[in-house]
Parts: sequence; structure tokens; C-alpha cells
Amino acid sequence: MKAITVLPGTPASVQLDDRPEPGPDRNALLVEALALGICGTDREIVSGAYGWAPPGRDRLILGHESLGRVLEAPDGSGFARGDHVVGIVRRKDPVPCVACAAGEWDMCRNGQYTERGIKALDGYGAERYRLEPDYAVKVDPALGLLGVLLEPSTILAKAWDHIDRIGHRTRSWSPKTILVTGAGPVGLLAALMGRQRNHEIHVLDLAETGPKPELVRDLGGTYHTRRLPDEFQADIVIECTGALTVIADVMKRATVDGIVCLTGVSNSGHSLPFDFGTFNRNMVLANLVTFGSVNANKRHYEMGADALAKADRSWLSRMITRKVPLSRWHEAFQGRPEDIKVVLQFAEAA
Amino acid sequence: MKAITVLPGTPASVQLDDRPEPGPDRNALLVEALALGICGTDREIVSGAYGWAPPGRDRLILGHESLGRVLEAPDGSGFARGDHVVGIVRRKDPVPCVACAAGEWDMCRNGQYTERGIKALDGYGAERYRLEPDYAVKVDPALGLLGVLLEPSTILAKAWDHIDRIGHRTRSWSPKTILVTGAGPVGLLAALMGRQRNHEIHVLDLAETGPKPELVRDLGGTYHTRRLPDEFQADIVIECTGALTVIADVMKRATVDGIVCLTGVSNSGHSLPFDFGTFNRNMVLANLVTFGSVNANKRHYEMGADALAKADRSWLSRMITRKVPLSRWHEAFQGRPEDIKVVLQFAEAA
Repeated sequence: MKAITVLPGTPASVQLDDRPEPGPDRNALLVEALALGICGTDREIVSGAYGWAPPGRDRLILGHESLGRVLEAPDGSGFARGDHVVGIVRRKDPVPCVACAAGEWDMCRNGQYTERGIKALDGYGAERYRLEPDYAVKVDPALGLLGVLLEPSTILAKAWDHIDRIGHRTRSWSPKTILVTGAGPVGLLAALMGRQRNHEIHVLDLAETGPKPELVRDLGGTYHTRRLPDEFQADIVIECTGALTVIADVMKRATVDGIVCLTGVSNSGHSLPFDFGTFNRNMVLANLVTFGSVNANKRHYEMGADALAKADRSWLSRMITRKVPLSRWHEAFQGRPEDIKVVLQFAEAA
Repeated sequence: MKAITVLPGTPASVQLDDRPEPGPDRNALLVEALALGICGTDREIVSGAYGWAPPGRDRLILGHESLGRVLEAPDGSGFARGDHVVGIVRRKDPVPCVACAAGEWDMCRNGQYTERGIKALDGYGAERYRLEPDYAVKVDPALGLLGVLLEPSTILAKAWDHIDRIGHRTRSWSPKTILVTGAGPVGLLAALMGRQRNHEIHVLDLAETGPKPELVRDLGGTYHTRRLPDEFQADIVIECTGALTVIADVMKRATVDGIVCLTGVSNSGHSLPFDFGTFNRNMVLANLVTFGSVNANKRHYEMGADALAKADRSWLSRMITRKVPLSRWHEAFQGRPEDIKVVLQFAEAA
């Protein structure tokens, strides 16, 4: 069978390999790949900047944003042939920390977790793969290819879950406006979930035209190109760019009692002059919260699946701006300015 | 009667005035002052940097860290002559915002709140004052003068309340170590409440000798003079200095899933070079939270009273490093290096 593999740490090592079929496993589903979403982490791994092969091997099968169809399911697994499933990315550490032991591998305290397609476990970028039922989540087959948006949705499901819980440290938490920075897949899904909570949506991005402004407006939101009005503030800010000047700016954009959620990973080693006095004073006197959120646990996959099920499918489908057939797989790893979500199609989803 | 008054905005205007006795009020307690704690906010007001007189008046009666004894109580108020009471500082805004309407004036969203002794309401620095029963909190008379520590305790009761609630955004939250920066009254009370939660306590301060290191050690904690070990991290950091270099440092001191609580107010307009890339990357990948906390609502007064009631009284009494009689009132506003909490005594507390 075909699989997308890389030599982690080696730039431009990505290739479409012939690999043996998955071996027998009475405890795992056998899944055929329908689609694979490509994200910044995949491109980082392809660039050689990130990623770990499974122990004792050189190459890693890439891919963590999965959509597959069950070919074989163990009796009593709760799954059946034909089910559409998405595989959870992270696995708890072998000697579980307190978070992993509670099923919260997204909060893993010792860093010993593994991640399919990223860290020490083969990913979902293969025509067929095994998937443990505990790490499989069903998606409505009526979603078709849109099921591939589940994994990025889980990142925002967790972010929103934590925003809700942190907000409710006070009884009177009643946010109205949200600001999302970045209108990529993560930002748009953040905005979608904000809309599903009936918030007033504002999204900031560089794009002047094209699907990003249109998608925001079709959510009933306000799209801001390149800059926000000077005095603009929101009750909730979800930062999805990882860009340092944007991050420094959004720290000033939360209203009294507001929450800034950081989801975009940036690189270390970039200093900016920063008025710590004002930052700290505002944090204290306005009861502000800034927090980071990464990854997602099974509960967030279920929340993400609910959010996708409630969403308008034509709106979701416009987030997928390129579908690349497996025969032209390499194009999926070449970013284009107009991309939102690029999906590699292994088979017809519907 | 005697009262400590200031002309807000005018440096060195503080004086001991003769003022008329409080007028009749069938709905309010009449309270005789036992003691008044002096804090940084009082010294800021005395320096002319802060404070607002009541509408239509030039001078403000100072004082917000109160301890008093009830002289007269309305029938059905729940209070009786002889009760020891502490007055709540903040009042909800006249047209309550959503937070104030819920009794959470500490989270006031429109800034229209008032504060006794600080903002538009006379304080508790008078021999006698009126106090609405809704804003009075009973303290155990057995605490004697130590009841004056309730108001600063409420600041930490709120901080800990929010730490607990934010921490429980994840089921596996199980903090072990806390770092407190600053061993003034706020820092020591933060450490006390951390100890009451069975955490391992670390406190950082500049003092090399004297009561601060001793008080920390007598809590069973570790005292760090001037600097922390290079790799030191804690699950919870409570910042109580407002010093910019300390704040910049503590942002790196939280473990994975950790929480940094900022309580020290700093001045605006001081920039430091700051590695935003590393800050953001760590916040995201380690699920970190940084939040600010100010003031306290009635629930926090009750939590603070519980914390004081459970504490060792001889330990608490060592936090009060100077008791100044009203006849030498001006000495209370002159900070000395060995001060922790300075208390102005209006009458014998016990």
C-alpha cells in the first residue's frame, strides 16, 4: 500500500512509499484512509524542523488530521464496518502522569506522550492503518469529506472548553464579543464555535479579498484586514497566528474580566520591547486572564464532532480550498497564498 | 471625634482632624474603631498619587483595613453590640454592571464602583463610623487585634479561589508546590493559605534576616533571598511584589499546566526587552495560565475569616511588626525597612 513518509530532521525527505499492509491485530480497527488534512505541523515536519520516527525506525508515516472508514472492527468494540472515524492524535505516556492517567493526555505533565504522525508513532497518511477503538471517534458519514475537519476542531473545542471554565471562575461571566486573530482553519473554527455560542464575532487577518473575509461575513462576523480599530476590545480573544506583533497587540485587546487564549505556536528567540508595567497593572486591575491551550483529549473530540454536526455544511466545505488526489500528493505540501485547508484525498469520502 | 483625613492629589496633606460624630442612621451599624491596617495604597494616597474625596467634598477620611466593635446595631441586622466587625471596602456601582449586580463588585466591569477610604466614600480611619450590615463581616473577638488582617486576607482568598477554579478546568489538577514572590503581608498571607492547602511553600524576598525568613520557615516553607535556583519551577506562582524584573522572571517559573497569579500593582511606562516567542510558545505548549486578581467580594471576606480562624495566632501576630497609637498616628505612614504590617491602634482590641 501507499504511505506518505518522512525522515524526521531531514529536509525534503517526504515521499510516497510502498509499505506493507497493516498486520493482524484483534484489538484494533482496520481503517481505510479517506482523507488527510495538511497543517503547519506537517509542513514543519516535512521541512525537517520537527518530528520523531517510531523507536528503531528511520522513517515516520506522516499525517494526523485523519478521516477513515472502518474495514474491520473487533466484536464488542462499538464500531462496525463502514463507520467513518477520526483517529485521536496523542496517546498517553507509557507510565502515565497524573493528567494522562485521567485521560487528559492534552495536559500531559511529563512530556512522555506520543503522537501519531508526529512523535514516535506512525501517522494516518497511509491507505490503511490500525486504530485502537479507544482512540477512534465516529463522525457522521453525512459530513463526507468534512469529517477531516474534526482534528483541527478539537483544538478549538478544548480552547473553548477552557475559556468557559476559566470564565466561570466568576458567576457574572457573560461574554458578548470575541476577537479571533488569524483566519486560517484554526481561526475560522474558533469563530464558528464563538458564533455557535451566540457571540459577536471579529476576525483579524492579512487577506484583503477571497474566501477568508467572505467566510467571516457569512458567519455574521466582522472581518478586519491587517489592523483593528485603535480602541477595539473584546471579552474573549483567541490568538491563532503565533505572530509576535499580533500576540503583543492582543494582550491589550481584552476588556475588564476578559480572557486571552493563545493557540498559535511561535518560535523562540525573538525579543520585543514590552511595557511590563502596563501589562501587569492591567492584568491585575482588570482581572485579566491569558492562557495557552494545546492539543485535545477525547472529550474535546466529541465536542468538536458536535460543533461540526451543528455547522452549515456549505460554509464548512468552503474552508477546504484545495483537494489534492493522492497521485499528486506532493502538491499538498506546497503552501499557496489562497489556501485555507488543504486536504489529501485517499478515496472518495461519500 | 478624631479622623485621619487627606486632600486627595495633594502630597503630605494627611492630618488628624476633628470631625463630627456620625449622624443617625436606622439602617446602619454604628462602629467604634479598634484598629486600622496601613498598606501601600494608603501610602500612595498620602503621597498624592491616588484617591478621590466623596462628591462635593475636598477631604477624604482615609483607611480601608478596618477592625471595629459594634456600638449600635439595627434590630434584625444580625449584629449586636460588642460584635467585632470588618467593613468591606468596595461598593457596587450605583447603576450596577452585571458583575456588581451579582454581588461580584471585585469584578466590576464599568469601573463605577466606590471604595471606602479610597474612592468617593469616607474610610474607616475615624474613631466611629457607620457601616451597612450588608457590608459588615463578623470576626471572632478571640482574634483580638489580628482581625485587622482580614481585609488583606480577602485579597488572597480571592486569588486562591480563582486559582482553584482555573486549575479545575482540568480534572487532573493536583498542584504540589507554590512560589510566592514578596514576603510582605500579602505574600505571607498567600503562603499561609497555600500551607493550609498542604502545598510545599517557597517564598522569595529581598530580606536576608528578620521576621520574614523566620515566618516562612515557621510555616514549614523554604525562604529564598534575592534569587531562586536557576531551574526552580512551581505549580502555582503568586506574584505579590509588582516589581517588573520579578514579574518577567516568574512568567518562566510555572510548571506544565501551571498558574501564575499576579496581585502586585506596578506602574506603567517601563519597558523591558521580552522574548515573546519563547513566552508564547511556552504558554501554548505547556497549557500555562497567567491571570490578575484585584479586590474581593463578600464571599472572599468569609473565606479570609475562615483562613485567619484556622491559622496559628502567634504566627499571625508576628506579621504585625508595629502597633502605633493614635497619638503618634503620623509614624504609621512612615515606612521602615523592617515593617511587615503596621497597625494604627484606635482602642484596645481585646
